[in-house]
Parts: sequence; structure tokens; C-alpha cells
Amino acid sequence: MAKTNPGRFFEDYTIGQVIRHAVPRTVSGGERALYHALYPARHAIYSSDEFAQVCGLPASPIDDLAAFHIVFGKSVPDISLNAVANLGYAEARWLRPVYSGDTLRAQSEVIGLKQNSSGKTGVVYVRTTGFNQHDLPVMEFVRWVMVRKRDETAPAPADTVPHTAASVAASDLVIPAGLDFTQYDFTLAGEPHRWGDYEIGEQIDHVDGVTIEEAEHMMATRLWQNTSKTHFDATPRADGKRLIYGGHVISMARALSFNGLANAQMIAAINAGSHANPCFAGDTVRAWSEVLDRADTSAPGVGALRLRLVATKGGAPFDLRGADGKHLPHVLLDLDYWVLMPK
Amino acid sequence: MAKTNPGRFFEDYTIGQVIRHAVPRTVSGGERALYHALYPARHAIYSSDEFAQVCGLPASPIDDLAAFHIVFGKSVPDISLNAVANLGYAEARWLRPVYSGDTLRAQSEVIGLKQNSSGKTGVVYVRTTGFNQHDLPVMEFVRWVMVRKRDETAPAPADTVPHTAASVAASDLVIPAGLDFTQYDFTLAGEPHRWGDYEIGEQIDHVDGVTIEEAEHMMATRLWQNTSKTHFDATPRADGKRLIYGGHVISMARALSFNGLANAQMIAAINAGSHANPCFAGDTVRAWSEVLDRADTSAPGVGALRLRLVATKGGAPFDLRGADGKHLPHVLLDLDYWVLMPK
Amino acid sequence: MAKTNPGRFFEDYTIGQVIRHAVPRTVSGGERALYHALYPARHAIYSSDEFAQVCGLPASPIDDLAAFHIVFGKSVPDISLNAVANLGYAEARWLRPVYSGDTLRAQSEVIGLKQNSSGKTGVVYVRTTGFNQHDLPVMEFVRWVMVRKRDETAPAPADTVPHTAASVAASDLVIPAGLDFTQYDFTLAGEPHRWGDYEIGEQIDHVDGVTIEEAEHMMATRLWQNTSKTHFDATPRADGKRLIYGGHVISMARALSFNGLANAQMIAAINAGSHANPCFAGDTVRAWSEVLDRADTSAPGVGALRLRLVATKGGAPFDLRGADGKHLPHVLLDLDYWVLMPK
Repeated sequence: MAKTNPGRFFEDYTIGQVIRHAVPRTVSGGERALYHALYPARHAIYSSDEFAQVCGLPASPIDDLAAFHIVFGKSVPDISLNAVANLGYAEARWLRPVYSGDTLRAQSEVIGLKQNSSGKTGVVYVRTTGFNQHDLPVMEFVRWVMVRKRDETAPAPADTVPHTAASVAASDLVIPAGLDFTQYDFTLAGEPHRWGDYEIGEQIDHVDGVTIEEAEHMMATRLWQNTSKTHFDATPRADGKRLIYGGHVISMARALSFNGLANAQMIAAINAGSHANPCFAGDTVRAWSEVLDRADTSAPGVGALRLRLVATKGGAPFDLRGADGKHLPHVLLDLDYWVLMPK
Repeated sequence: MAKTNPGRFFEDYTIGQVIRHAVPRTVSGGERALYHALYPARHAIYSSDEFAQVCGLPASPIDDLAAFHIVFGKSVPDISLNAVANLGYAEARWLRPVYSGDTLRAQSEVIGLKQNSSGKTGVVYVRTTGFNQHDLPVMEFVRWVMVRKRDETAPAPADTVPHTAASVAASDLVIPAGLDFTQYDFTLAGEPHRWGDYEIGEQIDHVDGVTIEEAEHMMATRLWQNTSKTHFDATPRADGKRLIYGGHVISMARALSFNGLANAQMIAAINAGSHANPCFAGDTVRAWSEVLDRADTSAPGVGALRLRLVATKGGAPFDLRGADGKHLPHVLLDLDYWVLMPK
Repeated sequence: MAKTNPGRFFEDYTIGQVIRHAVPRTVSGGERALYHALYPARHAIYSSDEFAQVCGLPASPIDDLAAFHIVFGKSVPDISLNAVANLGYAEARWLRPVYSGDTLRAQSEVIGLKQNSSGKTGVVYVRTTGFNQHDLPVMEFVRWVMVRKRDETAPAPADTVPHTAASVAASDLVIPAGLDFTQYDFTLAGEPHRWGDYEIGEQIDHVDGVTIEEAEHMMATRLWQNTSKTHFDATPRADGKRLIYGGHVISMARALSFNGLANAQMIAAINAGSHANPCFAGDTVRAWSEVLDRADTSAPGVGALRLRLVATKGGAPFDLRGADGKHLPHVLLDLDYWVLMPK
């Protein structure tokens, strides 16, 4: 019996199938310190227990994106080991903060299948949910990937393309229990700009750049126990470079966005995201943001802001798409997400 | 009085001498997170407190090899600072898991001495033991190294070559107190293969490759407080490369072996090990395994498997030795060890 | 309203102004493990809870220099974002150890201002203090930086140049409460040399070298949440190198000084420091020390030693200055500091 995991192929998925992913993970201050060593992360709720407590949380949580990367990483061996392409994200919501000592596991439900006309590949849609040790969901997201068929002659399943929201409705954002920004200390947080200071359409150039090294993105991607071969093995490419995990770019851009969005404390949802071009070691990542929407929330002092976050490896700030409507070659990431801010 | 430690020379060792090594170390979630950032480690007992508890342990221990590296690293300034070569390992046994909050120290007993015919060097055999803060042994191993003489005219000691077992007998393996695999969750562990599914002689290609970076192996080796100069100082070599600590290759290969041996949860013993060729940054490490033996244990649901683990930097899987009986040039590591698996 | 932080310019500072710095940080075993992965740090008090307890402390603190880097890093966005040069340090004192679970914040008082004759820049002197979550000071230091003016026509403030001590008087050193070296274990610490074994004028070559990688210094500098752009962005320089944070060199040299100063356990003060030449990835850092002074303390078994610590990237040990009195080009760091040692 072959022992090595070959990954799942398109015909291994069925609608309604629930896949429990392997290797639960307990997080500690170690993951938090590494997150801060790997990204220039400075949002105060994720840096200080005392700051988090003033905001009504029991302690400083693990960064929202660290939780995302862990849950995503667990899904890789079952969902995207044979993926040709990660096609999209939708309906990502953070449901509960993750604290030091929590153990995360993940599972995915197959919610859509559509064979491509080539007959060689198909698109698999899954809703992936991360749970803590109390079996309470901490986050969920839909993603869809193009997966190879094992046997190109295998019959195609009936097309099922799930309906996903173009963006998470503000009323569907989950505010962490107890979150209260009425005692928020803007000086300790790093900037004076409140939720009400941001206008729809406003663009912010986050200015700073970080040049990426191979060792860093590999350490990050391993930390999330993401097993995708392409991030670690230099031999397939003539230049010896490894394709950088798209989540590494998300975390880098989000951390860079502190400069201008220091009070965009917590990520509540990702509406959509596109890894427009690949990122490699040696690229210098910069970021800019655009305010897409604003919404009030029921939590004391807490407003929600919908933002576009764009990561680049060159080009001018705010240049996003060419005349053909496609992302320009210097655009690495185009992310649409909701944050929670003090009013 | 000269203050810098020159290390010990061959004539500084005497049979029966016990050397207490310096710099005890308290481990925490930080060491665990770094181990996962540095290696693609996914064995579930070392990743999740809850998984470990279902297996009868109080919490998720520090990876067995991290404990080995710490104990080994402590011995370096006293045993191998002036070593010309690390010649071998034998009788390595894990005696007790190491948990976050434990403090490790180490000591070595000189059990063998044999001057080489050149009169310039000699072989020193030591049994090194790691202890926790309760003075309970956590692991032990025999290693032998070739060490320079300070004074080539110093008289040779009587030859004492200790008898070491060709392999640790299955009956000498120490099972952690409480270990119980009867409730083991194979889905969460990542693979369905039980102890009984592995046959003696079976070979497994672990498929995945990881290209090594200088920053990674130096961070790893420093983390174990291993002071061997050759791993950190680029100036002695024209190509600016640093010889990679052999233990880094062991950990990398063991982590890669998850793919096919996900249920080989705990390392119980190392029977023998050879660092067949040096590893340098830029090498892409792959691994394959061969099942050497099987043994039952008295612990509920726990079987023992004796494995050969081979790390390579090229070549075809399962190619180990040339016609001359020597390891092929692409072989980095040839390790013979015992693991504990669910039955 | 522009959202991005432009940093303060010379005319934004006034004498007596107190600036509370942003982003408090809770430290854990994660920061400690990373410190040991980034530097070859082996001083036993910072490695072992049990060793620290035998020395009268409740647990092993975070390395003194890690506390310094965190406090310093917090001051960067407010003090040195527009700095042309870091000109000097004085009167740095450690006031209280920092333990896992502590949260650090920092504030600076402007104690001096002097516009340069060019009218384009001025020197700002600040006293920066780090506090823990109980609002107790953990360390303080004076530094002065040359800062650009926003508007060169803005009027110059009255010159105020603070008096700072050429060195911290031994009687002003703060000994951590409870520190007691009477039960000190020299074997576990790694060297037999006591305070009384060091003579004024004695020089020690620490021998070992560490070649620096980009990934390492960037991870370190991010871990301290230091936002200085020059350490992260390769694009301004034709060779793609990033200027390494001076504190990275301090920590590397201090860790290397273990070999000969293993018992120089705790740093009590920095009297002065000069980053004589820039450090870049690829440089191999070595260190040497010179004993400048000795002083007794009131704590049981504790003596104080004043040391010069010099980091180099080449050259011969003990070569410090040229005929012109200037630091030689291979000198990276010339640091004057006080340590606490067992008598």
C-alpha cells in the first residue's frame, strides 16, 4: 500500500462532502512573537494584553491573519495539493478571537464542483471552518481552486456553482464578545484617526517597503504548516526561486498598512481577494489602501470600515488595472476586507 | 589568566570523568513555534495539546529532536569544540518527554579513549545525558568524536573502546508514562497507516524537497546554543558557505518523513547515524525511509518500528551506497532509529 | 486629512515635552526563544529559570538588550523617523528586569535642542524611559539624534545642551531586587572567571565570528517593532543591501562576548556607545572587550565591571582607532557599559 499522500484529485470530491483536516495546532506566545518577527505588525490589540483588556478582550489575541493562515494551511493537503490555481476567496468571517493556549483544527465542506471544458481539470468550491478546542468556530471562508483530474476520462459531475456574496454584509460581521472601544487610547495605538475620519473613496499610500527574503517566507509558511511544495523547493525553477505563499503577501501588506490605518484594529471579514501576480524573494512589497464603505456596529465605540488593500512590487501607488481591465504586472494582491475601528 | 574557552584537547579526557555542561535552558512555546517555523514538522502529538492528551500525555511535548539538539548543543563546548570529526552515535534513547516550562541541562561521562596511530588526534567516546529540572533524565546517547591533541608528545592513554549495542533492543525502549494510542484519531493525525501496515523491507519516498537557506540553519543551531564555529563563520571558506549542523539535516529529514510516516509519532531511540556528506545552503533536502524492524510494546495500542531515514541532496530515492560500499555523494544522512506508532 | 505618519521634524520638539510612544508590547517565551535564535546568547540567567532562581530572581528575565531594543524601537516613530544620524547614547540604566508576561511601553522627554549652523537640521536630546504594566520603570537612556527641519526658515530654538554623565557612576547602578550571587554555579554558567579575576586594562579577544544574513537582522528589527525604513527596504541602495540596525550589532557582540565573559551576567548600564561604521549582510562580526573599571556593590556576591565592547567586521583584535583618532573602518561598534558579575 502506497504510504505517501498523493492529494485529492477533482473526481475525489462530492457535493456535501465534509473533510476533517489533519494536524491540530496549539498556539502560544511563540506564534505571536514569530508573527511580529516576520511582519512589521504593530496593531496594538495584537501586541499588548493590557491594550486588549482596555478594549474589552481577556488578553491580546493571535493576529487574525495568523488564525487565517493556520486554518488555511490545514486545508492545503486535502484541497489544494493538486491545485493548478487558487481562483478566489469569498465570505471569510472571523467569528471568535484566538488566544495563546487555544488549539485550532479545520474542516471543509465541498459546496461546488464544475468540470472545465478541457476535461482535464475542474473547479472545487469549499467552505472551510476553523474550530478551537471547545469546538467553537473561530473563522470560516469560501475558496475555490482549480484541481487536476486523476483520470481525464472520468465522468464529469453535475455543475454546481455556489452563490457567494459579492461582499459580506455589514450586518453579518461578527463583533468579538465584549469588544468596546470607548476607552480606546489613540496615543498608545499610534495614530489619531478615528473611523469617522475616513471617507469613502479616500486612498492612502502606506509608503514603507519591505524587501522579501527566502528564509522569511519559508519560515512563515512552515509555521502555518502549509505543505504546498512550490513554496519550499527551489529545484523546479531555473532561477532557484520559490513562489511565495499568497498569504505571506497579505500579512505583509496588512502590517504595512499600519502607517495610515493604525486604528483598523481587527479584521472582521474578507470579501474577496486576488493574488494578481506572483511574488518572489527580492521583491520589495509596498501597499496602498482605498476606503470602500463604512458601517456602524452595535458594539460600543466600534465602527466597521470596508477597505481595498493592494500590495505591489513596483509601480506608482493607486495604479491598479490596465486599459484591458486586468491587474497591472506590479500588483501582487487586491484584497477587499472589513475592519473594526474605534469611532 | 586567559579568559576565552579553548575547548578540551584529547589529553584533557580521562575514563570515568563526568563533565557537567554549561548553560541550562528553560523551554517554552517559543522553542516549539520556532521548531515548526524551521522545519515542516507536522506530527500531531507535537502540534496539539488536545491530541497529546488523547494519547495519554499531559500536554504536547517539545519535539524529541529539539530535546536532542538542546542536550547535544550543551555538550559541544566540552566535547567537540576541537573535534576534527563527529564519528558516530549509538544507544540514543528518549527517557521522558520535555514540556514547556522544563529546564534542561546535560552532562557527559567519558567512556572510551583511543589515540590514533598518527599521534596527533584521538577518539573520545562519551555518554551524554540530558536532565530536566527535577534531575530526571530526559534522554541519553553515546557519541564519539576525533579530537586534536594539544601536545602531540603527550603520552597516549590505554586504549578503551566501549562496547555499544549495534541497535537499541526493542525491550530497552522507554515508553512515556501514560502513552496510550487506543483512542488515536488517524484523521487528525493525517494518515490512515497503522503500525501493522508497514512491512520490513518496505521503502517510502517522502517526495517533498526543501531548499536550505543560511539564515534558517544558523537560527536553528543558535536556538540549541550550539557554539560550533563552523556553522556561523563564513570566512574560512572561499565560497562563503557555512557547514550546516548535522542535526539540522536530521530534523529536516524527519519532518519531511511525515508524508508517509505521519503516524510515526514519537522517536524512542537512535541506533546509529552517519552524516555521510556535508550539507550547505542552496542544497535541496529530500528524504526516504526503509522499514528495518518491528516490535510490539507493552503500552496500549503502541507498536515500535525501526526505520532507516536517509536524507539526500539529489540522486534517486533509495540509492544509498556505491559499488565500494560507501555512501553516495548525494547522501547527507543515514539514520537508524525507533519510533512509536499506533497499532 | 493625510493619514500616514510623516514623523516629527526638528521644529516639532520643545524642551520639556513628554512624548508617549505607541504600541505597548507584551513579551513571552516567544521573544526569548527568538532572541536565542537570532544571537548566540548563552548567559545562564537569561536561559534558565532555575539558574535565575538560584541567583535570587523569580524567573529568567528577557535579555536586557531585548528590553532595550523594545523600548528603543517604540521611540523610533516619534524621535528618529526623520533622523539623519544617531549621534550618541548616555546614562542608560536598567532599573528592573522584564519577565515573560510583562507589557512594555515607552515615553521620551525632550531634554535638549540645538539647531545646526546649516539651518537645515538640529540635534534633539531625549531621555527615553520604558515602563512595565505596573507603570514601573524598567530602563532609561538618553540619546541624541540629528533631525531634519521641515521648514528651513523656521526660527531656531534657544540652544539647550543637557549635561550627561561621561559614565554612570557605580553608585548609581541599580541592582535588581533580590539579586544574590553567593550560590552561583560557575560550572553551569560556563566559565570559572570571577569578578576579581578581571583586571583593569585587560583585553579579551572573543574569537568567534558570525556572518550576518538579511533575513536575520530584519526579523530581529521587526521583532522590536522598529519601523526605521532603512533596515527593510532594499530599493534605495544600488547593491540591494539594507543598513543593519545598530542594536543588532550590539546584541551580536554582547552574545559573542560570552566566550571570556560568561559570568558578566546582567547589563546594568550603558555609559556611551558609537556605531562607528555601518554593518551590512555578509559582514562577519567578531568582538573584543577591554576592562575599564571595577566597583563593588551592596548586593551579596555581586560585583560590577565596566567594559568596552568592540564589534568588528575585519581587522585585528584590539585595533580601535587610526592615527587621526577616528575609529578604524573595520570597527562597527564601540560600547562602554557596566555589567554585574559574581565575586
